[in-house]
Amino acid sequence: MPAAFPSSDPAIPTAPLTAEMRDALRAIVGEKGLIEDEHGKRPFVTDWRGLLVGGAGAVVRPGSTEEVAKVVRLCHQHGIAIVPQGGNTGLMGGATPWPAHTGIVLSLGRMNRVLDVDPVGYTMTVEAGCVLQTLQETASRHDRFLPLSLGAQGSCMIGGNLSTNAGGVQVLRYGNARNLVLGLEVVLPSGEVWDGLRALKKDNTGYDLKHLFMGAEGTLGIITKAVLKLWPAPKDVCTAWLAIRDPRAALEILSEAHSASEDNVGSCELMSRAAVDMVLRHIPGTQDPLKADTPWYLLLEWSSARARQDGAEGMSEKMEQFLADQLEAGRVLDAVIAQTGNQSRNMWRIRESVAEASRAEGPGMSFDISVAISSIPEFIARGLEAALDILPTIRPYPLGHIGDGNLHFSFMGPSGMDQQTLAQYKGAITRAVNDLVTSLGGSISAEHGIGIDKLDELSHYRSKTELDIMRTIKRALDPQNIMNPGKVLRL
Amino acid sequence: MPAAFPSSDPAIPTAPLTAEMRDALRAIVGEKGLIEDEHGKRPFVTDWRGLLVGGAGAVVRPGSTEEVAKVVRLCHQHGIAIVPQGGNTGLMGGATPWPAHTGIVLSLGRMNRVLDVDPVGYTMTVEAGCVLQTLQETASRHDRFLPLSLGAQGSCMIGGNLSTNAGGVQVLRYGNARNLVLGLEVVLPSGEVWDGLRALKKDNTGYDLKHLFMGAEGTLGIITKAVLKLWPAPKDVCTAWLAIRDPRAALEILSEAHSASEDNVGSCELMSRAAVDMVLRHIPGTQDPLKADTPWYLLLEWSSARARQDGAEGMSEKMEQFLADQLEAGRVLDAVIAQTGNQSRNMWRIRESVAEASRAEGPGMSFDISVAISSIPEFIARGLEAALDILPTIRPYPLGHIGDGNLHFSFMGPSGMDQQTLAQYKGAITRAVNDLVTSLGGSISAEHGIGIDKLDELSHYRSKTELDIMRTIKRALDPQNIMNPGKVLRL
Repeated sequence: MPAAFPSSDPAIPTAPLTAEMRDALRAIVGEKGLIEDEHGKRPFVTDWRGLLVGGAGAVVRPGSTEEVAKVVRLCHQHGIAIVPQGGNTGLMGGATPWPAHTGIVLSLGRMNRVLDVDPVGYTMTVEAGCVLQTLQETASRHDRFLPLSLGAQGSCMIGGNLSTNAGGVQVLRYGNARNLVLGLEVVLPSGEVWDGLRALKKDNTGYDLKHLFMGAEGTLGIITKAVLKLWPAPKDVCTAWLAIRDPRAALEILSEAHSASEDNVGSCELMSRAAVDMVLRHIPGTQDPLKADTPWYLLLEWSSARARQDGAEGMSEKMEQFLADQLEAGRVLDAVIAQTGNQSRNMWRIRESVAEASRAEGPGMSFDISVAISSIPEFIARGLEAALDILPTIRPYPLGHIGDGNLHFSFMGPSGMDQQTLAQYKGAITRAVNDLVTSLGGSISAEHGIGIDKLDELSHYRSKTELDIMRTIKRALDPQNIMNPGKVLRL
Repeated sequence: MPAAFPSSDPAIPTAPLTAEMRDALRAIVGEKGLIEDEHGKRPFVTDWRGLLVGGAGAVVRPGSTEEVAKVVRLCHQHGIAIVPQGGNTGLMGGATPWPAHTGIVLSLGRMNRVLDVDPVGYTMTVEAGCVLQTLQETASRHDRFLPLSLGAQGSCMIGGNLSTNAGGVQVLRYGNARNLVLGLEVVLPSGEVWDGLRALKKDNTGYDLKHLFMGAEGTLGIITKAVLKLWPAPKDVCTAWLAIRDPRAALEILSEAHSASEDNVGSCELMSRAAVDMVLRHIPGTQDPLKADTPWYLLLEWSSARARQDGAEGMSEKMEQFLADQLEAGRVLDAVIAQTGNQSRNMWRIRESVAEASRAEGPGMSFDISVAISSIPEFIARGLEAALDILPTIRPYPLGHIGDGNLHFSFMGPSGMDQQTLAQYKGAITRAVNDLVTSLGGSISAEHGIGIDKLDELSHYRSKTELDIMRTIKRALDPQNIMNPGKVLRL
C-alpha cells in the first residue's frame, strides 16, 4: 500500500461483485457503461496526485439519474460499496477507493448535459458530470457569470465540486461552491432519488438537505443534478500586483478595498516571494510583474458588472486612487496595474501555476488551513517558526486566499533532500501546524476536504460530540455504509 | 382549541413536570429564571398573532450556555419536552407550544450579550437572545453592516432568526439568515454542547452541521451563540419609487439593475396599488410617494460602501440614468428618487407597515410563497385568477421580495365579511394557491417556515422521500422527540 494511505484500514463493506451482479449492472448501463479490465479501471482507482491506488470490482458509468438510481438500488440490495467520482481531481483521495474496496467506482462523467439556462432568473440547471470550465463558458455565452474558479477547472466536474464544497479564487466575493447552489437532485444510499432540484432563492420548508449533501464528499448520497446561481458578467475588470509591507498590511488593504471598490473586490491573493520564484523557475512564459525584491505580494482584482462609461470613473481609476492612498499609508511598497489582457493573464498564471510548479520542484508538503482573517499574520509567524524549528532547512512558500482566512501553507523540501527523508519530518510538522491551527480556532482543511488523507487528523482535532453527530447522521442515512465508505469519518 | 391549530394533534411527549423536576430546574436557573404562574407564562405560550395559545409546565430562562445545557440534560433524562423560544415573533407558531405540552418553554432572552466585534475580520460573536436591532446598531457603531433586516427587528432575537433562517428585505444582495453565519454553538437534545463557534469563512472538515440547525426551527437543538458575518457600512444609498408597467417589467428592471448599479442593488420590493392604499389608509403619517394611479410599484434601493466622491458619479446619478433608460424602454411609467432621509424613510415605511395595516384592515389571508424568479408574472396572473374564482369579492394586495422570487400573496376579505365566513373559503384558496406553487416548482413557505401552521401542508406537498430523510435525521438526533415536538414534521 502506498505510504499516503493511513496505517489502519477503516471498516468498509467487502462483498464482492459476483458474475450475476456484473450482468445486472451491464443490463442497466450497457456495455459501454461498464469497465472491468485492469487497464481501463486504472485511471479511476488512481488519485490525481498519483499517490493513492485503490481497488474496484468495476467502474460503472451511468448515463442518467435513472441509471444511477438503478445501480445504487442494486448495490444497496447486495451490500456492495460505491465510490462516486467526478473529474477525479481532488487532492485528499476522496474519490479514490481504498485498496480493499471490492465494489464499484461510479463515474458521473457521462452525465454532462446543461439542461437549462435562465438568464433573467440568473440560474442554470446542469448534470453532475459537466466539466466546470464548460459551465463557465456556457454562462458567459448568456452574458452571465458562474463564479466558481479553480486550478482544475478544465477537468473537474460540477458534481465533485459540490460534493466537496470546492473553494477557489472567487470565494471572497461569491462564497464557496455551496453558496452557488439553489437546488440539488441526489441519489440516496437506498437508491431512492431526492428531487430537491428547485430554482428557489428562498425555501424554508423543513431541514436544508442540500447543505448536508454538499461537503459530504459522496458519503451520504450521489449528487446527480444541480440548479446553480449565476451573476452578471464582469464588464470592467482591473487586476493589480502589489508588493506589500507584510501579511498584516494585506489584511488592512483588503479591509479598505471593500468600500474603495464599492464592494467590487473579486480576488485578493497573498503570495510569498518564494512562491513567485518557484513559478518563475518552472513555468515557461511567466514573468515577474514587478521588479521588487520584497517578501510579500498581493494579487488584487476588482471587477464590476457595469461597463466603463465615457467620462465616468471606472475600476482602474478607483484602483489607481486606492493604490496611491495605500502607498502613502506605507502598506503598499510598489504596485502595477495590468494594462493589457496579457499582463492580467500573466499575474493570474503565476497564482494558478503554483501547484504545477511545486510538482516540478520536487518533494514538499502543503497544509490547506484557515483561521479567522484577523489571525492570519499571527498564524504565519508562529507556523513558520514551528516548522523551521523541526527542520531548519525546509523552504516555505506560503500563499493563499487571504480574504477567506485560507492559507496554502506550503513547503519545499530542503535542497537535495529526497521524498523518503522528508517524509520522516512530515508527521511532526503536520502535528505542529495543525495544533497551532486548532489553538487559533481554525480549520485543518479549509477547502480541500477530508477524503482519505485527513481521516485521522479529523478524528484527532474534532470533538467527540462533533464526530458523534456526523456519525449519527451517516449511520441514519447509510446504515449499510455502502456510500463512499472509509472517507471523511471512521465509523 | 383555537381554530388555527391543525385538527389532529401530533405525537408529543407528555411527561409532566414533577415537583422534583421543578426544584432541579430552579437549582440551575435560580428563582428569577423560572416562571410557573399562569399570568407570567401567558406571553410565552401565546403566539405573536394571538391565534395560538399553548400549554407549558413552566417557562425556563437560562442565563448561559452552561445553564441551557444543564436544563436540557435534565429534560433529556426525564423525557420532558422543550419548546425553545427567542423573541416569539414568528408567524407560523414554531415557538408556541401545543396545548397538550406539559414540558417547558426555554426562553433565550436572558442570553443577550455581544461577545466580540472584529471590524477587520468583519465578524461579530453574539448570544442567541440578542435583539436583532441591537446587533444592527452594534455593527453600525463599528462602521460595519449586519444586513439582516425585517419588520420584527425591534423585538425578534438572533437565535430565532437563525433557527428559522429568517429572510427580510436584504436577501437579494446578502442572502437569507443562514448566509450571514460563520459558526454556531448549539445545545443538542442530549444536553451536550456542540462547539461550532468558528469564525471561519472556509472549513471543509466533514458535514456542515450549522446549516442543519439553521432552518430546523429548534427541532434538532437550541442555538445558543453565533459568529455573524459583517459587511462594510453603506455610505451612499439611493432609494427610488417606481410606477411600473407590470410584474414582468419588474423582473426586467431588476435584471438590468444589477449591472447598471455595479452589483449594488440592495432591495427590490414589488407592491400592488392595493397594498399601498391599505397602508395609506391605516398608518398615520405615510404619504404616497408618487401620484400615479397604476396597479404596480417597485421600491428600488441601491447602496454602495463607498462614500460619494467629489465630482464623481454616485448612486443617485447612476440611478437617474438608469430610470431614464427604463422610462424610455416603457418598463417604468413614472418614478421618483428620494431626495431626503425623510422621503426614503416614508418609502420604506409603506413597505414595512403592510403587516400592521393588514391587521387594522380586518380579516384576511396571506401566503408566503416562492417560485423561480422568471415564473413570478405567471404565478401572479394564475394565482389571482384561482383565488377570485373561489371568492370573486376577495380583495388581493400582492407584494413581495421579487428578486428572491418571494411573494407575500395576500388578500383582504370582501368588505363586510367576518372572519368566520372568510375562514370557510380559506381551505379551498390555500389548496389552489399551493397547488399552483407546487406545479411551478415553488415553495409553500419561502421565509416564514413551517412551525405549527404549515405542518399538514408540508406533509401534503413534499415527497415521501424528502419527508423520510427529514424524519430519519430528526429521529437520529432526537430519539425521544423532546426538542420542539410537533413542529415542522409529524413523526
